[in-house]
Amino acid sequence: MVKRPFDLLNEAIGREVLVQLKNGMQIRGTLLAFDAHMNLTLDGAEEIEGVETKRKLGKILIRGDTVIFVSPSL
Amino acid sequence: MVKRPFDLLNEAIGREVLVQLKNGMQIRGTLLAFDAHMNLTLDGAEEIEGVETKRKLGKILIRGDTVIFVSPSL
Amino acid sequence: MVKRPFDLLNEAIGREVLVQLKNGMQIRGTLLAFDAHMNLTLDGAEEIEGVETKRKLGKILIRGDTVIFVSPSL
Amino acid sequence: MVKRPFDLLNEAIGREVLVQLKNGMQIRGTLLAFDAHMNLTLDGAEEIEGVETKRKLGKILIRGDTVIFVSPSL
Amino acid sequence: MVKRPFDLLNEAIGREVLVQLKNGMQIRGTLLAFDAHMNLTLDGAEEIEGVETKRKLGKILIRGDTVIFVSPSL
Amino acid sequence: MVKRPFDLLNEAIGREVLVQLKNGMQIRGTLLAFDAHMNLTLDGAEEIEGVETKRKLGKILIRGDTVIFVSPSL
Amino acid sequence: MVKRPFDLLNEAIGREVLVQLKNGMQIRGTLLAFDAHMNLTLDGAEEIEGVETKRKLGKILIRGDTVIFVSPSL
Repeated sequence: MVKRPFDLLNEAIGREVLVQLKNGMQIRGTLLAFDAHMNLTLDGAEEIEGVETKRKLGKILIRGDTVIFVSPSL
Repeated sequence: MVKRPFDLLNEAIGREVLVQLKNGMQIRGTLLAFDAHMNLTLDGAEEIEGVETKRKLGKILIRGDTVIFVSPSL
Repeated sequence: MVKRPFDLLNEAIGREVLVQLKNGMQIRGTLLAFDAHMNLTLDGAEEIEGVETKRKLGKILIRGDTVIFVSPSL
Repeated sequence: MVKRPFDLLNEAIGREVLVQLKNGMQIRGTLLAFDAHMNLTLDGAEEIEGVETKRKLGKILIRGDTVIFVSPSL
Repeated sequence: MVKRPFDLLNEAIGREVLVQLKNGMQIRGTLLAFDAHMNLTLDGAEEIEGVETKRKLGKILIRGDTVIFVSPSL
Repeated sequence: MVKRPFDLLNEAIGREVLVQLKNGMQIRGTLLAFDAHMNLTLDGAEEIEGVETKRKLGKILIRGDTVIFVSPSL
Repeated sequence: MVKRPFDLLNEAIGREVLVQLKNGMQIRGTLLAFDAHMNLTLDGAEEIEGVETKRKLGKILIRGDTVIFVSPSL
């Protein structure tokens, strides 16, 4: 059960997440790590547009202050 | 009774809320958790436009600094 | 008499206020609570445009860093 | 004489000031109070455009981080 | 000689400076005071456009976080 | 293995990285150093557009708060 | 050798640097001083556009939070 907002990220380690960024980009990938600033490391990251892959990015570090929301895949 | 602004979030745990974001997006879902930065976890979240569902998001963590307001459903 | 800027909010508790937001939205409602970050809880909140009500919002928590100004109703 | 920037606000208490905001709005009114974040309370505030009054606002609390400059009336 | 960036402001006290602001405005005036946040007080301030005076502002307090650069007049 | 988000930068020292910036620019170069604010020093940096080099920049210091993401080359 | 990002600025003292700003401006000049906020003092500063000088600025203090990157001249 989620008690604090970041618990959702703890539960999502090793799973696929969707990250919506403030500049409108959407990134999908496997969550490897996060910290208290919401900095995120993803593996197998892809920039997506709707259901299409726009760009393969591999491992990336996303800066937390660019994030709007993070959602583990349905 | 509300004494401090965040009391409203305390009262809204487990209830449906509308979250207006700075990029113009509106998210509706059940409030699971929040913290002092206004980071929010919602369950059954949906991006909405007016009264229509635009995208189903499931569980999401919304970054607090992207929030304009949070309103428990009427 | 107002000695510190936030005294105006203290005096406005329980009264109607107009809140101008950075994204251009204007919210009117009864001030229930505020804190040092200018987070505000309003009751009976409405998004307004000029003198017209655009959307009824009920109780809302407005994030302080989205506020331009707060004005108790004339 | 002004030694620190905020001395200008001290001298302006009770006098009319012009406040230029980051969203392009200009507010004129009598300075009642300020704090270290440049939060300002004005009395008899008016939104102005050039030399014309656009909207009467009465007493308002302006959030400091929306201010570009404050100028006591010439 | 300049050892720290703010030494330039120290040397410029009582002299004319050009201040470029983030919203595109340029202000010219005599530097009266500054602080560690780069808040600036100018005397005889004028908003300029190229070499023309657009608006006379008199004494003003400019909020530091709106500044791009400050340059003592050549 | 990555445990904390910044571990990815540690592993990338001496390797080529792609840096996506908030203003839309993309910089590619060899990561020389980084700090806790995500300030980055690159060697042989180039501004790129798609797969083309737009501008050679040599050694650069990128300010961390302008970064969206950093990705070691695939 | 560069160990920390700011070492690049240390090495660049007294040399010509290119500073890319968030508002799109580019400034070239001799680096006189910097601090931990990336505030920079330049001598003989010029606003440039491509390879052309647009405006001579002389000595300037650039506010660190407006910087995208700093690059010592090639």
